[in-house]
Amino acid sequence: MAGWARAVRGLLLDVSGVLYDSGADGGVPIAGSAEAVRRIKASGLKLRLCTNETQATRENFVKKLQGMGFDVSVSEVTAPAPAACHILKERGLRPHLLVHDDLVPEFAEIDKTNPNCVVLGDAAENFTYANLNEAFRVLIGMEKPVLISLGRGRYYKETDGLKLDVGAYMKALEYACDVQAEVVGKPSKRFFESALAEMGVLAEQTFRRKPPRREA
Amino acid sequence: MAGWARAVRGLLLDVSGVLYDSGADGGVPIAGSAEAVRRIKASGLKLRLCTNETQATRENFVKKLQGMGFDVSVSEVTAPAPAACHILKERGLRPHLLVHDDLVPEFAEIDKTNPNCVVLGDAAENFTYANLNEAFRVLIGMEKPVLISLGRGRYYKETDGLKLDVGAYMKALEYACDVQAEVVGKPSKRFFESALAEMGVLAEQTFRRKPPRREA
Repeated sequence: MAGWARAVRGLLLDVSGVLYDSGADGGVPIAGSAEAVRRIKASGLKLRLCTNETQATRENFVKKLQGMGFDVSVSEVTAPAPAACHILKERGLRPHLLVHDDLVPEFAEIDKTNPNCVVLGDAAENFTYANLNEAFRVLIGMEKPVLISLGRGRYYKETDGLKLDVGAYMKALEYACDVQAEVVGKPSKRFFESALAEMGVLAEQTFRRKPPRREA
Repeated sequence: MAGWARAVRGLLLDVSGVLYDSGADGGVPIAGSAEAVRRIKASGLKLRLCTNETQATRENFVKKLQGMGFDVSVSEVTAPAPAACHILKERGLRPHLLVHDDLVPEFAEIDKTNPNCVVLGDAAENFTYANLNEAFRVLIGMEKPVLISLGRGRYYKETDGLKLDVGAYMKALEYACDVQAEVVGKPSKRFFESALAEMGVLAEQTFRRKPPRREA
């Protein structure tokens, strides 16, 4: 065992492209990955799934993974929406949400009346002309627009082709409002730090496995 | 008459906000503007309307102006779509169009088979999730993506509220494809130069009247 490996106390794992490949029926597990997760946990290492998934609540995300044979729980997942909720509460922000329908429950306990920020996720079919104009109007109506973006991906692949990711829409709103979004999710350092804090380990005690870069 | 005024041979006029204010029924003429256009033409000065209008063909744009009492003709209008057609022909580009339905006839004589560029206008209701993904896929499929944007406005006001303008969607596609759009229309220098060439006057012989800046 290499020297660095002996110091490792926990692992941060990407999920899509590492544990499973997305596809038609929610995806297929990558061969050996469920067994790897089992062995990691059996070894006493701490484990945390670090995902930019914003098309489902953590509950549903974990259900999907469990259905593929992964022994994981909601408490082992770090995702942008809960991290954003933490920021919203901390700063007294009331979001106007432009997110996927399936993500909305993550914000159930957040006050959304009289919004003073916009939270943007991969809204997919909710990225309509009307919804984009509405989010824009909320932002431009603020003295100092606050735009929180759940990730900044450019695009991703689904079975029916490539799709623009949240980052593209983030750029549209940034330009229209002359504002810079606060990105919550990978690759934000703060996002990784909260994952570490939740695991209770230090950065130098972790190992993060990520797949080969597939997109710009 | 001031010294500079004696040298003037032609005028470039903005239209929306200078000759008329947009509004519910296509807009209302600004008091005195139709008479001003008449006097400019009677004086022997050359006149050219320089607009970023991309929600209508020049024909329909001019019909609207004539209906408001302006003595103007199609040949006096410089607009992004015809300027883009000039570029497309010059460079052998075949566009995938993401524009307003009412602008499509401006591209009637352009070969659009097997696209090797994307032309983006203020598509308004045509800015759907599906259409944006489609334009993105055409771009990202090119060895060297060519994106031509008819203007780069951030937003504008309509009677039912503010709307994101073409520039916001341009930024989304620029980011997703890591490409810089070529902007045709104001404030591109080349656009003003073609307006001058069409009038047959030099830059120092013209006077351009523009309204106070209303948006960022």
